[in-house]
Amino acid sequence: MDYIEEIISLKEQMMFHGEIRPPTGFDNIVIAGMGGSGIAGKIFRDIYSVKPVTLVESHKIPDFVDSNTLFIAISYSGNTEETLSALEAAKNKGAKIESITSGGKLASIVPEAVIVPKGYQPRSAIGYLTLPLLKGFGLVGKVEIEEAVEEINKIDTDTSTYREIAEKLFSTRSIPVIYGTHPLGSLAYRWKTQFNENSKILSYSGEFPELNHNDTMALEKTYRKDEFYFFVLTHKFTDNNTMNRIGITSELSNIRFSEIKGEGDSLLSNLFTIIHKGDYISYFLATLRKTDPKDVSIIEDLKKRLNETI
Amino acid sequence: MDYIEEIISLKEQMMFHGEIRPPTGFDNIVIAGMGGSGIAGKIFRDIYSVKPVTLVESHKIPDFVDSNTLFIAISYSGNTEETLSALEAAKNKGAKIESITSGGKLASIVPEAVIVPKGYQPRSAIGYLTLPLLKGFGLVGKVEIEEAVEEINKIDTDTSTYREIAEKLFSTRSIPVIYGTHPLGSLAYRWKTQFNENSKILSYSGEFPELNHNDTMALEKTYRKDEFYFFVLTHKFTDNNTMNRIGITSELSNIRFSEIKGEGDSLLSNLFTIIHKGDYISYFLATLRKTDPKDVSIIEDLKKRLNETI
Repeated sequence: MDYIEEIISLKEQMMFHGEIRPPTGFDNIVIAGMGGSGIAGKIFRDIYSVKPVTLVESHKIPDFVDSNTLFIAISYSGNTEETLSALEAAKNKGAKIESITSGGKLASIVPEAVIVPKGYQPRSAIGYLTLPLLKGFGLVGKVEIEEAVEEINKIDTDTSTYREIAEKLFSTRSIPVIYGTHPLGSLAYRWKTQFNENSKILSYSGEFPELNHNDTMALEKTYRKDEFYFFVLTHKFTDNNTMNRIGITSELSNIRFSEIKGEGDSLLSNLFTIIHKGDYISYFLATLRKTDPKDVSIIEDLKKRLNETI
Repeated sequence: MDYIEEIISLKEQMMFHGEIRPPTGFDNIVIAGMGGSGIAGKIFRDIYSVKPVTLVESHKIPDFVDSNTLFIAISYSGNTEETLSALEAAKNKGAKIESITSGGKLASIVPEAVIVPKGYQPRSAIGYLTLPLLKGFGLVGKVEIEEAVEEINKIDTDTSTYREIAEKLFSTRSIPVIYGTHPLGSLAYRWKTQFNENSKILSYSGEFPELNHNDTMALEKTYRKDEFYFFVLTHKFTDNNTMNRIGITSELSNIRFSEIKGEGDSLLSNLFTIIHKGDYISYFLATLRKTDPKDVSIIEDLKKRLNETI
């Protein structure tokens, strides 16, 4: 499958039937996942706030994990070293286990895992990895999914805006900095990682209002100001306080933000349309740079080398 | 007080007597704090894992906050808009409240607040803001504090290394990127914010092993590779897997990491010596750039402008 086909498959992914079935009797959730698989947990934590959600991005799990913990291991390949170690530790402590994966070791360790289709880059399977969480915890339903599909479809029918933004980044050799807004702050991190993996360029993310306590002091006087390209991700749920902050920050720092808006009325539609726009921009930038967006050979080499050191 | 005096006061801050006195009967902790005050909560979450810790960096608190939540509001000034809003919401939901502040509205809203000395920049009061958490939850004692003071003192007696690093950043007009290592990953963010506020330059942070799933693909081929300066923060508790990752990442990406090491045997000493080194580097860089490290006028202007829009 070409990378562009993976992007376009998002609509299809939205209609994936699988979902997590939360057990009873847990009082906190721990989600382990790295990189493209880890994003699903970050998005879930942005949206779900019925119980504390702790993210694990390493081999280690927190001490509090016990039989009152619902531990969800997310790894598209099913073979992510950190996630498998964390899962092993959580099992030993008696946590309730759930999982989302396309196969690998994870599928055999967790028989009741939600199994998603194979053949994608983990980061392209973001619909498959996220929907089972959102649906399983009752955060989205049929209406929102239908709206999201419709809005994603509109983006697919005319991608010229995203190509133009990629051309701007390309012609100025800019480093993208992406600022997110509550409650979808983690989308800025998603964008950053897509620029890293697809376009092979450094990129950094932050979130309003926190960045108003640090980045803001740098924006005006920093070295190399013209070498960064600032995005701000807004959506239907971005509040007035934040919109004011964006405007005032731009004025005081003499920075022009490129505003990327979520589409539609529902949180789900806003969420996935913002993701989709970033996927296109990072893909077009990769093609302009004549680099293969699917190439993650350095990450693969690193994994091989790490295994040799064990 | 000169900014350099604030930095040097860290030894004194380590011996601050105040501490949080955790109540009984809570099953999760929520810590609200922004910017220089928020770092204390991030460090605490890195180290404490007896119960789930959720950080709040906005006006909003999670739905799960109730009488089983210990809510800790940290604001050096005591007047941080986001933190006061979050506190108000937590009080309304019956959470158990604790606070660390130098005064302001917070001190009057929470009579039992730990009151720390006035007159510092919030980010310079990091000892005052963090020790009451670490001591209150029994994470550090007299022996660790004495060791930390001794190691900090050694740094103070010869700061030439940190001045040299600042000179390198200055002469190359580099953007610092700082990578942290478990369990002190949030120190990379601390360093970033110090470059932002003290030196007035953009800076970004990440953490091993997560960055091996995204940044790693960018390091080799990114635009403007030579315009970044990469730090990695290691310490006595950085595990072998991570040390291997650092070495292999450097080799595969053809990136030289400037390794900054924690000093001493205890976690506390490693923690605060790494903070201290970053404080010096960002301070020296400010002086080289002839910018006032204490100047946060844009943040202040922003707050004023925001108040006018309400």
